[in-house]
Parts: sequence; C-alpha cells; structure tokens
Amino acid sequence: MKITILGNNSALPAFGRHPTAQVVALRSELILIDCGECTQVQMQRYGIRWRGLNYILISHLHGDHYFGLPGLLNSMSLMGRSDPLHLFAPAPLKSILDLILEAAGTVLSFRLHFYPLPEGAGLLVENFSFTISCFPVIHRIDCHGFVVETKQRSRRLLPEKCMELNIPISFYDSLKQGADYTSSTGEVIPNDTVTADPPPTKKYAYCADTVYTDSFLPYITGADAIYHESTYLHNDRDKAEARFHSTALQAAQLAVSAGVGMLLLGHFSSKYKDLYPFKEEAQVVFNNVHIAEEGNVYEL
Amino acid sequence: MKITILGNNSALPAFGRHPTAQVVALRSELILIDCGECTQVQMQRYGIRWRGLNYILISHLHGDHYFGLPGLLNSMSLMGRSDPLHLFAPAPLKSILDLILEAAGTVLSFRLHFYPLPEGAGLLVENFSFTISCFPVIHRIDCHGFVVETKQRSRRLLPEKCMELNIPISFYDSLKQGADYTSSTGEVIPNDTVTADPPPTKKYAYCADTVYTDSFLPYITGADAIYHESTYLHNDRDKAEARFHSTALQAAQLAVSAGVGMLLLGHFSSKYKDLYPFKEEAQVVFNNVHIAEEGNVYEL
Repeated sequence: MKITILGNNSALPAFGRHPTAQVVALRSELILIDCGECTQVQMQRYGIRWRGLNYILISHLHGDHYFGLPGLLNSMSLMGRSDPLHLFAPAPLKSILDLILEAAGTVLSFRLHFYPLPEGAGLLVENFSFTISCFPVIHRIDCHGFVVETKQRSRRLLPEKCMELNIPISFYDSLKQGADYTSSTGEVIPNDTVTADPPPTKKYAYCADTVYTDSFLPYITGADAIYHESTYLHNDRDKAEARFHSTALQAAQLAVSAGVGMLLLGHFSSKYKDLYPFKEEAQVVFNNVHIAEEGNVYEL
Repeated sequence: MKITILGNNSALPAFGRHPTAQVVALRSELILIDCGECTQVQMQRYGIRWRGLNYILISHLHGDHYFGLPGLLNSMSLMGRSDPLHLFAPAPLKSILDLILEAAGTVLSFRLHFYPLPEGAGLLVENFSFTISCFPVIHRIDCHGFVVETKQRSRRLLPEKCMELNIPISFYDSLKQGADYTSSTGEVIPNDTVTADPPPTKKYAYCADTVYTDSFLPYITGADAIYHESTYLHNDRDKAEARFHSTALQAAQLAVSAGVGMLLLGHFSSKYKDLYPFKEEAQVVFNNVHIAEEGNVYEL
C-alpha cells in the first residue's frame, strides 16, 4: 500500500501548497481520497495515471476537499474513460454534479456510480483484496474519515519445493489455505516447508478534517498509518478547537492512543510557511511522524 | 489597459498549461474573464491581487471556463473580503453556486451580485471610465464574448500654461471639455494651447470559445486587441468545426475582417506541445499576433 500526497494545505493555497488530496495505491487499484482544486494537475505532475483510479472518496463538502472533482471527472471523460467510477461522498454532492453536467450539456463517457456516505460508520467497498470503510469525525459540517484495509491473502507457494517433493498440482490450493500434505506413502509434509507467509495486511486511516477527539478511536486503532490533520500548532489550540480543527500535538496524542505505526500530518494553515515545527511538536509524544509533503510517497 | 493571461489551454491541462482565465486591468480596477480550475493559484503565481477584483465574467458553463470560481470566491471570503463582487455569467451558474455554498454551510464575507447574461448582446457595466458588454458567439452551448472599452476622458490640463496665461481656475472644467478661453480683454486662447489630448480610448474583445464565424464581427470591429481561441491548427479545421472551435488561421482571418490592432491566440488543444506553429499560421494573414502565454502581460 502506497500513499501519494497531492495536496497538504488547508483551504487557502499558499507557498506552492495545494488543498487536500491523496492517492492510496493497492497493486493495480487506485483510491483517491479528497480532491481539492488542482488535483488533476497534481496527478499529472506526480505521474499518477487515471487508468487505475476506480474509487474516489470525499470526506466532506468544504470546497478545499472537492473543488477539483468536477474537472477531474470532465478530463477523464474527455480522455474517453470507459471503466465505471465509484464515488463515495456526502449526499448533496450528487445534485451539485448533476447541475454542473447539465449546464455543460455533458454526458460522461463512463458510468459514475454515486454512493452517499451513511450517517455514521459503515462498510463502503469489499472485494477479494481490500475493504474501504468510513467513520464519522467531528467537524463544522458532516465529515467522514476513511479506512482502507487489505485482506489477508493466502499463503505463497514455493513452486520448486512443491515439485521437489512431488506434491500434485491439484493440492496447491489446499497448500495456499495452510493444509499439510500427506503423500501416498503416509509421509506428512508440513505446510510451511512448501509455502511462505503471505504479505501482512495493511490498514490506513484517513481522519479528514476534525476537531481533536477520541470518538473515532476504535476505527483507527492498530492502523499501520494514519493521516491526521494538524491545521495549527498547539499554541493555537483555541483557534483549532473553535474552527473544528486540530493541532500537531493533538494528532500525535491520538496516534499514541490508537497505537498506530506511523502518523502523517497535513491540512496546514496558510499562515505557516515552515512546516518543520509541526513535526517537532508531534515528535514530543510520538516518534514516527511525517509531514505529508506533496509528491512524497509513503509505503506501508 | 493590461491583459494578464492566467490560463491558455483548452479543457485538459497539459504541458504545464492551465484552463482559460485572464485578467484585464484598468488603472485600479481588475476584471477577471473566465476562471478555469487553478485560477486562484495562477493569480498568486503572477502577483494578481484580489483586492482590485470587482468584476468576474464567465463566458459559458464548460468547466474549463469556471471550475476555479467556487474556490476563488471561497478564498476571497476566507481572507475577509468585504467589497461587493459583480459576477456576470450564464444563469444556471447561480443555482450551482448556491448549492455549493449551502452544502458547505458557507456565508460569503462579501456581497456577491449575480447577473445572468442576456440571450443576445447587451451592456453589462457602465461607469465613468469604462463599459463592459457581451455578445453571443457560436459554441456547443450558450456562450458569450465580452468587450471591455475605456471611455473618452476629458482633455488634460497643462497647469503651467494655464497659470502663465492667467486663466481662472473656475474655467478649468470648461477647458477639460475643450472650450477656448476668452479673456476680459477679448483675447481668445485656443484650447489646445493650454490642454493636451487625453489618452486614447482602448477596446479589448474576448471572443471566448467559438466556431469560426463573422456573426459577431460588429462587436469586435476596430478593437485595439482581440483574444480569439485557436484550439486547433488549420489542418484540423474539420475537427475544429465539428467541436465548435476555431483554428489559428481562422482567428487571424477574423482579426483582418475586424480591422483590429492585435490578436491574442489561446485555448490550445492539449495535443499541441509546441505553440509556435499557431503564431506562424496566423501570421500568414495577420501580422500582429501573439500566443497568449501564461503570465505574460499585454498592454494596449
């Protein structure tokens, strides 16, 4: 699982930073989380191809989290996309997009499936290799965080070992499920001599825009990485709270409570040019912190 | 009158070029014409301050001409703008903006006056120093071009001459209007000995997205400069016509017919990396042609 940051700033673009957008890559599948203005340009800049992008998740309807979406949909249509696209977003976005398309006389070249986010938490996508779910956070308007989690894959066959030990191909599926093999002579070959552990599952939680709260702790606990906003430094905690935002220290405190592996900080206020103090502040309580730098790829 | 190009590309951003937007500056007044995605970022990049921006004109509701508008309005509001803003655009944009603002729970910090564009041509703004008018062009959906024209100013007083010839201050206004002065001894002082010609008026026409047509020729005739789209080169004229766009040669032919001073070409298809052939093609019939380069300022 790889996370590419496309925008790490809060609403007012500043210092070359862009509003919120990031891409989670899972093998051949791309999931775009939030889509601030200029996201399509940022995708071009950082070599993110639209082809694998089948899921878009919008946390809430403040413009810095979705004003890039109509342009991106439009461009994918102009490029002749035919694969269906699955969009999960607050319900009112549907009417907004419908009006925009109608005003332009545009019929998208692909099928856009719109799924309104539920009121609370819920499972959004489940397939053989991953799940996407959402959970409510606390912001000035309805806002959701998202969890992307890979599924446990079957054990990896070691083909040379299997052939050496004359295990019939028809038994390979059972080996992948962890079964030992018993030969016709009664010899038992333990599973772990002919298979290897599958790659570990990965869990990434995107906590969107939120005031500092542990209300969604159960959803993010044990994640390999979380993204948590830190619009302000902690000396502005009153301002953060009044605007339903968080500080770097608060994000780090939540990372500790949730026992996560890594913390990505983002959604920085335009008043800050230098972002290093955010890392410094968070590291006081949680060590594995990164400033979500645009263009950076974080591999879990 | 100065025109700053913020975006010169057609719908798909490419080669670092952005969708359509440009700013016309008249002394302290700024007029934004079209507002493609990333316009606010481009304004920051090229040092266009929001303070003087009181008029926004949107030619039509294809996204590459207005998807930057909600973000720009939002940002001006976040910065606490209090001056009213005058927005001229196709009527359906009103409902789109209303929905967007409602979904975000946003009340703008300033008064946004929305004026739907008329069906045909019309005067949009008239004040003591300039007019803005619109005219219909021919595109896939309703689309308007715009004319910004400065008014004839009064003659410029030459104060030292006036004092030397003892012309009373009370007569200065008459001098500005072109009157000769007759002294108490009956001596006539011709106006042009104590005044100079005012700066010439300027007329700029923005022809938006349009198929090649002379239907709007009367509105742009005699302009000091026009902007005319040239999405394609002339070997793609069939494609241009089918998509209600124009070629560089066609834009130049119209510039000749309209007897204008300068032609700016823009709205280039994403298929072209090198834009020089557009200039070359247009110059075959019209000499004073410029590629509307992003960041360039064209002074009339």
